Amino acid sequence: MFLFWFCMVFLNKDFIPESKCRVLKTMAPILFNTMGTDHSEYIEEEEVHVKNPHLDSMEEDILYHLDLGTKTHNLPEMFGDIKFVCVGGSANRMKSFAQFIHQELGLPGDNDDIRDICAGTDRYSMFKAGPVLSISHGMGVPSMSIMLHELIKLLHHARCRDVILIRIGTSGGVGLAPGTVVVTKQAVDCFFQAQFEQVVLGKVITRSTELDKGLAEELLANSAEIPNLPTVIGNTMCTHDFYEGQGRLDGALCSFSTEEKLEYLHKAYDAGVRNIEMESTVFAAMCLTCGLKAAVVCVTLLNRFEGDQINTPHRLLLEYQQRPQVLVSHLIKKRLGLIQ
Amino acid sequence: MFLFWFCMVFLNKDFIPESKCRVLKTMAPILFNTMGTDHSEYIEEEEVHVKNPHLDSMEEDILYHLDLGTKTHNLPEMFGDIKFVCVGGSANRMKSFAQFIHQELGLPGDNDDIRDICAGTDRYSMFKAGPVLSISHGMGVPSMSIMLHELIKLLHHARCRDVILIRIGTSGGVGLAPGTVVVTKQAVDCFFQAQFEQVVLGKVITRSTELDKGLAEELLANSAEIPNLPTVIGNTMCTHDFYEGQGRLDGALCSFSTEEKLEYLHKAYDAGVRNIEMESTVFAAMCLTCGLKAAVVCVTLLNRFEGDQINTPHRLLLEYQQRPQVLVSHLIKKRLGLIQ
Repeated sequence: MFLFWFCMVFLNKDFIPESKCRVLKTMAPILFNTMGTDHSEYIEEEEVHVKNPHLDSMEEDILYHLDLGTKTHNLPEMFGDIKFVCVGGSANRMKSFAQFIHQELGLPGDNDDIRDICAGTDRYSMFKAGPVLSISHGMGVPSMSIMLHELIKLLHHARCRDVILIRIGTSGGVGLAPGTVVVTKQAVDCFFQAQFEQVVLGKVITRSTELDKGLAEELLANSAEIPNLPTVIGNTMCTHDFYEGQGRLDGALCSFSTEEKLEYLHKAYDAGVRNIEMESTVFAAMCLTCGLKAAVVCVTLLNRFEGDQINTPHRLLLEYQQRPQVLVSHLIKKRLGLIQ
Repeated sequence: MFLFWFCMVFLNKDFIPESKCRVLKTMAPILFNTMGTDHSEYIEEEEVHVKNPHLDSMEEDILYHLDLGTKTHNLPEMFGDIKFVCVGGSANRMKSFAQFIHQELGLPGDNDDIRDICAGTDRYSMFKAGPVLSISHGMGVPSMSIMLHELIKLLHHARCRDVILIRIGTSGGVGLAPGTVVVTKQAVDCFFQAQFEQVVLGKVITRSTELDKGLAEELLANSAEIPNLPTVIGNTMCTHDFYEGQGRLDGALCSFSTEEKLEYLHKAYDAGVRNIEMESTVFAAMCLTCGLKAAVVCVTLLNRFEGDQINTPHRLLLEYQQRPQVLVSHLIKKRLGLIQ
């Protein structure tokens, strides 16, 4: 098996060309079973499911916000080898991550040559480094939701198998030192419930936001192997607003006192919330519904018990933002058998 | 008064330098009163209000997602002359609009030189052309909300007066030919109610989404003066999801039939809805709360009674997207007295 990776990395060929991609897909159960992980669920290949009976009857599927389509692009050839999809809010950050993972996996070619696959639109940016796809999703649940619908259809059209999705993001910490990485145990809403409310044709339905427990534990275990990477596991609260919804005192609108803010944040802490961001519930709910193993790994930029404004020096913010990337890169390398 | 504008436009000086900006602000009541509009509300200057007593006690205000701040930037000097703020989802489109309005207002300098004021971040893009600010807001209510909080604080810190905000966007049409411009009468939620639900510290409060009636009527009247600009006034439905929430049959998830989809869209039509997008309710609610006159002008890219996929040719999509820009540019030129 190692000979296979050795060939791909050092013989200066494309990391996983279509021919090898087919081999990889066939071999995937064995591959993952020999990597020294204890993830027996990887023994069986899993396709990416869409839950939409109408799709089969469509002649063409235009993934409008990604500027891709089934008639205009050969999606299996472009994306069939994808095993890891990493998503994050900022396009620049997701480009940096693609360059970083390209280097970490020892892929051939210059990582400065990595191009935005969605360059025809400015809604999202997408970069590919071997079996890793790195995509931006903008800010907030609706922006994440549009990207996920089109990404999941893309993975389905490309006939990808055994894909895991990881959100690598930034967040506000609750009772944690800035720079702490939080691996999400449960994605909860602003009432601290592990659920996501989706409106379908004017009716509210509720979906579970359960994430993959094994993957979260694996990430936490991995973090212990990396120096200077303070990591905890905890609940992540997802709000639809950065200011009033997260109890900030510094928005254009604020009708509550410092005491009321702190009371809310302490209630969140007591409910197990360790960080606050704006996309995790829909991410967890959609991945679960479509049978995709998913995790959320966010760094905290500040401790909300101590303030609202993000006034950490720029240099330090950049260093913090690399921490989830380092942790997820470590997991990917272990899963690929590149490190023990 | 016209001599003043003549000097600014033709003597190749900055459109509104700080010294003249102060003059303009002092003269604004007379200026707007002599422009031939019948907007008597413009006789009195109106400051931009923030509704947050905590802001006064802050030594510094970092507008994190705009990469601007009260200590690092001279906001009154940079933005004090702003009278029109136009917002839209896409950064590229808002750059094009800034270049277009720069040309339409006959401003000095090359419109290719217009730079992104928020270049230090990739969350939003911001461009300035004379008294017009053009900003992107991404997709969905949360993304719009973050931008609006920081924009309203920016206008407040910059001591702007008599500012109007217009969203120029794209949308799905309901019973309208693609390419029709919809001036929003009421921004309604997915239950067809003219309200916006905001969570504050875990409690849901409801805000009115009333837009400025005079401004909507003025836009509609203006549209009649422009050839080939089919325009209607109607309600705009704002959803938190592009696929299931808008009754699309082509998402990764879909649990309803074509008949159920059409039933929902016909109910929307009967409630006065003529187009669907994803930001108008929070835009209307926040502008109303902060005393800002606001309008929403979106072009329809497809007729949702006839389909879900946006498969209009690229060239035509570009032409459609320019229509709200042309209409808003016409209004701005009339308000500035550049055309009768």
